[in-house]
Amino acid sequence: LKDSSPLWKFPTDRFVNYFFLNEAFKIIVDEVLNKGTDVQQKVCDWKEPEELAQLLDLELRAAGEPHHRLLERVRDVAKYSIKTSHPRFFNQQFAGVDYHSLAGRFLSEALNTNLYTYEAAPVFVLMENEVLRSLRLLIGWTEGDGIFCPGGSTSNMYAMNLARFQLFPEVKSQGLCGLPRLAIFTSSQSHYSVKKGAGFLGIGTDNVILVKVDDGGCMIPEDLDEKIALVKSQGTVPFIVSCTAGTTVQGAFDPLDRIADVCEKHKLWMHVDVTNSVAWNPHKLLLAGLQCSALLLRDCTGLLKRCHVANATYLFQQDKFYDLDLDIGNKSLQCSRKVDCLKLWLMWKAVGSSGLEERVNKACLLCRYFVQELKKRKGFYLLHEPEFLNICFWFIPPSLRGKEGNPDYQEKLAKVAPAIKERMMKKGSMMVGYQPLENKVNFFRMVVLSPLVSQEDMDFCLDEIERLGNDM
Amino acid sequence: LKDSSPLWKFPTDRFVNYFFLNEAFKIIVDEVLNKGTDVQQKVCDWKEPEELAQLLDLELRAAGEPHHRLLERVRDVAKYSIKTSHPRFFNQQFAGVDYHSLAGRFLSEALNTNLYTYEAAPVFVLMENEVLRSLRLLIGWTEGDGIFCPGGSTSNMYAMNLARFQLFPEVKSQGLCGLPRLAIFTSSQSHYSVKKGAGFLGIGTDNVILVKVDDGGCMIPEDLDEKIALVKSQGTVPFIVSCTAGTTVQGAFDPLDRIADVCEKHKLWMHVDVTNSVAWNPHKLLLAGLQCSALLLRDCTGLLKRCHVANATYLFQQDKFYDLDLDIGNKSLQCSRKVDCLKLWLMWKAVGSSGLEERVNKACLLCRYFVQELKKRKGFYLLHEPEFLNICFWFIPPSLRGKEGNPDYQEKLAKVAPAIKERMMKKGSMMVGYQPLENKVNFFRMVVLSPLVSQEDMDFCLDEIERLGNDM
Repeated sequence: LKDSSPLWKFPTDRFVNYFFLNEAFKIIVDEVLNKGTDVQQKVCDWKEPEELAQLLDLELRAAGEPHHRLLERVRDVAKYSIKTSHPRFFNQQFAGVDYHSLAGRFLSEALNTNLYTYEAAPVFVLMENEVLRSLRLLIGWTEGDGIFCPGGSTSNMYAMNLARFQLFPEVKSQGLCGLPRLAIFTSSQSHYSVKKGAGFLGIGTDNVILVKVDDGGCMIPEDLDEKIALVKSQGTVPFIVSCTAGTTVQGAFDPLDRIADVCEKHKLWMHVDVTNSVAWNPHKLLLAGLQCSALLLRDCTGLLKRCHVANATYLFQQDKFYDLDLDIGNKSLQCSRKVDCLKLWLMWKAVGSSGLEERVNKACLLCRYFVQELKKRKGFYLLHEPEFLNICFWFIPPSLRGKEGNPDYQEKLAKVAPAIKERMMKKGSMMVGYQPLENKVNFFRMVVLSPLVSQEDMDFCLDEIERLGNDM
Repeated sequence: LKDSSPLWKFPTDRFVNYFFLNEAFKIIVDEVLNKGTDVQQKVCDWKEPEELAQLLDLELRAAGEPHHRLLERVRDVAKYSIKTSHPRFFNQQFAGVDYHSLAGRFLSEALNTNLYTYEAAPVFVLMENEVLRSLRLLIGWTEGDGIFCPGGSTSNMYAMNLARFQLFPEVKSQGLCGLPRLAIFTSSQSHYSVKKGAGFLGIGTDNVILVKVDDGGCMIPEDLDEKIALVKSQGTVPFIVSCTAGTTVQGAFDPLDRIADVCEKHKLWMHVDVTNSVAWNPHKLLLAGLQCSALLLRDCTGLLKRCHVANATYLFQQDKFYDLDLDIGNKSLQCSRKVDCLKLWLMWKAVGSSGLEERVNKACLLCRYFVQELKKRKGFYLLHEPEFLNICFWFIPPSLRGKEGNPDYQEKLAKVAPAIKERMMKKGSMMVGYQPLENKVNFFRMVVLSPLVSQEDMDFCLDEIERLGNDM
């Protein structure tokens, strides 16, 4: 067998590889971090899908390609991708770039290990523990548990599963068959992951009871209390209230203290709260980069592990030469789990808690500035005074001003935001989201997060909407 | 408000940031890719947790740190982390490094976008589609659906949820309450994610019926057929058979054709199969890097979307100016979803399908070489002729040779692998896993995947076990 096959000559020339990686790194810096954050450049280079597919030549073939061709591909992918770190990207709840976090992400990718055992990830088992502890301290918990999940939807699902397991530990082994109907309470403006999770966990989306919100989008505790009582009287068992601290559209905060009282009264698990669990996504406002989502628990009884343990003998051998509590894989539903703590840790070390605080304060200041300027202009109307960093507003084009009484006013207004959005994307000048909400027709949802953003960018955003919509 | 606050002066000096990132990149190349793959260096630098925590100074404080200190931290994290790309890392089902994939991972991290809508990720919506199509073609499906998931456990859970939804679409809205007991079939040597998923989905781990395996670890179709019939006679509804193509410990392949016949007979969803769905993890043998896990579906009726759709109005507006099928977020349980396709795509473009094939062939060749050499040596015993790239074997130290008849033989043999493992980790020379399996006491599980590995590394592995265990 020895030396008998050309396979032994598999090309692994180190210097060729380093050179390639180095060139790719230079293109990334140039296209994504330099041009991609330059306000003089487009935020997106809109192409129709057919045209884009052709430009990219996506097809995968039997033969490989030389490095110079691959480097062109790296440049093309960067060129036609959305510049989410651009100062004119206000489209989602992430934006901007932190270079320390980015260094942490490159390091995690290069180290390519798996957060299930101490033997495979000694540094990261300890680091995740410390980052979770620090996050818990920020919300005032001196003890507890937690885990990084692949996104907030997963964190929310974990919380539901834990709340259910605490109330009915037998669900894990026996399933829901034979149990009474279970119910989850959340506000009508909460994130859709609550319903997705209920479907996935076998609880059913119909058993997610939507609690009424006030005009600002905050859950009304009295309605929660009434709905819990009603559901109980029908023989259904409520087990969790999933609150929201910063709703997706309006950025509203549910009144956590008053909801806590209702939960206390009915003995329900409260998620996002001083009571049981919080899902916290540093990949949003804190700029840690996708994915970075922590589930924090107040529990100190090992609930997370008891709920998810599987004890695979090939990973979690009981006769290891170190403390088995360091093998944290039994807390996760995943087996392979990416390292999501390093990027946050390195960024936190870089700017300190005070630097993180400063960023949040800067975002709040920018948000207030935007609202102040918006109010000075004709044709801009706030849905509601913003509670957080989401600014929801309509732009009323000249032809609709003063026509509020017309029967087709709402119908025409609904078409304004999509039309302006199409124009800004095809121009590549800016990205802002829009949507309808309950009985309100399409409005813009501006999200201000990034420390790279300035007052000038806020002014530009208002000017650009006027420019794009003034002939409507 | 204008210019009134020091917050506006938030430091965003581009050149300082580029310099920092560039220095971090150099450290990553040096520590992880250069030293970390050098056979003359240790695969791990073992520290007790208390000592390691102290060395790393993990605590997060109010004040930030200067760049030179952060660069030391980048080096420390790299230094004390496991070198999973080292030629002596045989500990898990991932190993080695592909520099093209790594370039794709750096690019994904820098672009930091979210795979839910075409407007946020135009390149990656099209690319994911093409990569999934190419993976399906490799298993012989000319049409179908699929999605990248955060790991194989999640892919397996998706398959269970889809199979359940296809049989009982009302589960999504109404939950499991009122339905008969459901059952999942899998082999007794399948991955633990099947049980974890059953617990999470509300089915219950007791309702995962473990089918017997033969000596090589392959599911016995006759036992499957009998167990399905038994469960049905008890009023339970079977809905999925979760097969394994390469079990975690022995690398065994369930006999898919014969299991397909049983599934056909009982009208069950078959996972990992020519019938319904496959979970495929390119982050393992194909070296794409964590996380890269695809769920492939044969379904062409939009089952994935119907099962997981939530229609969030702020993302999936129905009045967009482009084809709404390009907004693929409704197929996922996640909302924020990382781009996991680019790294695989770039690597595939680089080496071609033929290059990927060559790597798998090289791994098989190395595995055969290892087995051939192992058989020539005293004290090494295979559990079973390997079917794939996992080589399961015992090392019998001199003091136990010829003592098979002694009453404490098994008990003593069970302690050999953990003791050798401790020695190799503290020395940092090599990493190989071990575990017991059913009635077999602790044995080594060697996994050979990486194209960086040579015949010399195979020889070293056998020599090193002898060196570390010869005084036992």
